[in-house]
Amino acid sequence: MVLEDISTYVDDHADEYIGWLQTLLRQPSVAAQNLGMVEAAGIVQRQLEHIGASPRLIDTRGGQPVVFGEVSAGADVSDPRTLSFYNHYDVQPAEPYDLWDSDPWAAEIRDGHIWARGVSDNKGNIVARIAAIHAWQQVRGELPLNLRFIIEGEEEIGSPNLANFTADHPDLCAADACIWEFGGRALSGQPQIHLGLKGMCYVELHAHGANSDLHSSLATTIPNAAWRLVWALNSLKGPDERVRIPGFYDKVLEPTAEEQAALERLPDDDAAGLELYGIDRYLLNLRGMEKKIRDSYQPTLTIAGFESGYTGTGTKTVMPGAAMAKVDMRLCASQDPHEIFELFKAHLLMQGFGDIEVRLLSALMPARTPLTAPIVEVVSTAYRDLYGEEPMIYPTSAGSGPWYQLCEQFGVDGCTAGVGNGRSNAHAPNENIAVDDFILGIKHIALIMERFAASTAVSQ
Amino acid sequence: MVLEDISTYVDDHADEYIGWLQTLLRQPSVAAQNLGMVEAAGIVQRQLEHIGASPRLIDTRGGQPVVFGEVSAGADVSDPRTLSFYNHYDVQPAEPYDLWDSDPWAAEIRDGHIWARGVSDNKGNIVARIAAIHAWQQVRGELPLNLRFIIEGEEEIGSPNLANFTADHPDLCAADACIWEFGGRALSGQPQIHLGLKGMCYVELHAHGANSDLHSSLATTIPNAAWRLVWALNSLKGPDERVRIPGFYDKVLEPTAEEQAALERLPDDDAAGLELYGIDRYLLNLRGMEKKIRDSYQPTLTIAGFESGYTGTGTKTVMPGAAMAKVDMRLCASQDPHEIFELFKAHLLMQGFGDIEVRLLSALMPARTPLTAPIVEVVSTAYRDLYGEEPMIYPTSAGSGPWYQLCEQFGVDGCTAGVGNGRSNAHAPNENIAVDDFILGIKHIALIMERFAASTAVSQ
Repeated sequence: MVLEDISTYVDDHADEYIGWLQTLLRQPSVAAQNLGMVEAAGIVQRQLEHIGASPRLIDTRGGQPVVFGEVSAGADVSDPRTLSFYNHYDVQPAEPYDLWDSDPWAAEIRDGHIWARGVSDNKGNIVARIAAIHAWQQVRGELPLNLRFIIEGEEEIGSPNLANFTADHPDLCAADACIWEFGGRALSGQPQIHLGLKGMCYVELHAHGANSDLHSSLATTIPNAAWRLVWALNSLKGPDERVRIPGFYDKVLEPTAEEQAALERLPDDDAAGLELYGIDRYLLNLRGMEKKIRDSYQPTLTIAGFESGYTGTGTKTVMPGAAMAKVDMRLCASQDPHEIFELFKAHLLMQGFGDIEVRLLSALMPARTPLTAPIVEVVSTAYRDLYGEEPMIYPTSAGSGPWYQLCEQFGVDGCTAGVGNGRSNAHAPNENIAVDDFILGIKHIALIMERFAASTAVSQ
Repeated sequence: MVLEDISTYVDDHADEYIGWLQTLLRQPSVAAQNLGMVEAAGIVQRQLEHIGASPRLIDTRGGQPVVFGEVSAGADVSDPRTLSFYNHYDVQPAEPYDLWDSDPWAAEIRDGHIWARGVSDNKGNIVARIAAIHAWQQVRGELPLNLRFIIEGEEEIGSPNLANFTADHPDLCAADACIWEFGGRALSGQPQIHLGLKGMCYVELHAHGANSDLHSSLATTIPNAAWRLVWALNSLKGPDERVRIPGFYDKVLEPTAEEQAALERLPDDDAAGLELYGIDRYLLNLRGMEKKIRDSYQPTLTIAGFESGYTGTGTKTVMPGAAMAKVDMRLCASQDPHEIFELFKAHLLMQGFGDIEVRLLSALMPARTPLTAPIVEVVSTAYRDLYGEEPMIYPTSAGSGPWYQLCEQFGVDGCTAGVGNGRSNAHAPNENIAVDDFILGIKHIALIMERFAASTAVSQ
């Protein structure tokens, strides 16, 4: 059995590590609402102190600070390699609260799962990584490689100030590989690895009609902000799901033959997805390879929120003076979010919606790590040996994050590993992970440490 | 000077009548939210007791009860005529509270105005009518005609149970004329009379995507409820402001030559409207007669509310599983709301939006009283003699209400008269009336009583 000594220690101390996780989960930390951020950063710092990581808060020129920590390899390790962990102590808002079966900040354990906002994305991973190092130190003493923690506080709002951190402290970003903040099992239960992220261009649209909400009898001749916004949105994408902004797809690339082969190896969980999401079919009736390619290699343009007028019980005959929508666009290949933002604004103007105000809330470049990077083999075999299943390797995730800032621009290979699963409800009500996966995730990180240190020694 | 005795009494007791009004305004009574309805009905009953109107609550088969009261003419009046007052003790919701300059339930007096939800629509009129009768009784004793009050509790939610009341109690609806619940001055300050109302078909639309809000990375292939609803709404009306539902306009009529002449006589307050509403131009660039005809003789299809996904501060990368919109259609001529509802549903189905759930929340027939009805002359000359200005006579209002149920179906002539004005913000934040208009409105009702009783005696 691999890693028997550390595995036994982790099993014997499972309750202690679960307790660490609950402590962090019970602290709300919503960057979008500036809720509990200082307190959550403090808890992460104290947990990093448990493993002697000398944590410190690093200013990001006005944003939420980065919690940075490092633990050096033992003095007898010659020319140790460096593995970094990228995480974030902020989480998504918990709203709508009424759709949760238990308080999102209670971290209740029920049916073998821990239920809490952020447990999958990504507080479970923060604590699993700290616990893995703690267990290593208790069982084996000093570490075989250098470890670094870069734990930011603004991932869920699009990491707006992380570029300041990476520009101010490029030395702290150096590493031989980086374990990304999320990871875990697919719907099928099989572990999965993602080697990149889509980019993000998140905008907020504001339409204006009269200077206040008015009696709707005036609708004959007074402009209605809600109609303006509906028409503007409709100009962006129709039921054919094709984005109508000229130039939007110009920098999107089809997958290479190697990438197509990687997609072909992925199992088909289309049926499980339909059941999970309660739908009859996927958009455009896609299945199999067509769906896989669209999921990984096509950008999106999503209405994330819309609010206007009276939305309470019953009738109110009012004509809205204002309307607001949030739109998130996930970008692929070399779609630059700032270029996309300009195309977006130009399109609305051309379509006669120059009256709609457009604000850029978040911008991230897409980025990927090659399928052949050494860390991929390490994480992959560690999954296989611990989980008893070959992991599925995705050339990219359909999600977004600062992979470009932290990995691609510094030539650092990135790879995901984590404790989530396909029913974890990240960003949604009833977010959860399996308690067993949390324990397994601790062991997984320890095995990655062992093998990445060893594989490096061999390669040198 | 007309009505000198009663006028003097009203001026001397202005504070008392303003106090009655504030008492009623300080009681929230939002039928849409079932807020304070019993309490408001109780206050109205007690005020009707002041004038010996023997008020009673009349069941509407499960809806909010109608407060009914009547005061008979003095015993020496032979063959007295009957004038009824139609009002409602419910008001629109006060949301959004943060746009009010003072508490909508405080009835604050500031700058010569009373600021409160419902003061214009239509609690100011309820109290002015009761006060007029009270002053008459104090000064002159018995009344020269029979008076009836029909004060319902569901006007702002489309009077869904008023048809039950009129079916169960046609005898209580009989009258020679009915003073409608609203009325007052135009933007220009000139008094105005409306002789009918548009109909109403108010629907709520629900779109469904996946069975919960999801991480927006899934937007590649999972349906988004907000997009479904945007596209469905877009299918109903485009920026040309023409409703696209087949058959929608079939029963709409152009104004007759007589009606056109009445519209021609109305002054042009287009410029004042643009300034008041803070807009550069009216829809379709309409002005003058074209705008008047559209306001009075064209139906509308209005988005009154839209809610979906995350609408809080900052970014949340979520794909909505549900979306809701409220749509109000104001109907003209003989557009039947139930027929329109069927056309609406059939259109969505034809356009591929059979997945959108459509609920009918309110249905009212359009209705009008002839320009030649005797009550029109009485209200009109009373305005002229008290306000010093000839009133503007509108063949119909652009608003909606149960004119058909209470007037047209019983052959009762209706006419508006009231204390509001063009800046009263009915249905909007900062609803208000001028204190002076409230006092003038009391006198106006007294003069209408005197003249309607007298004109009747002459005509017999």
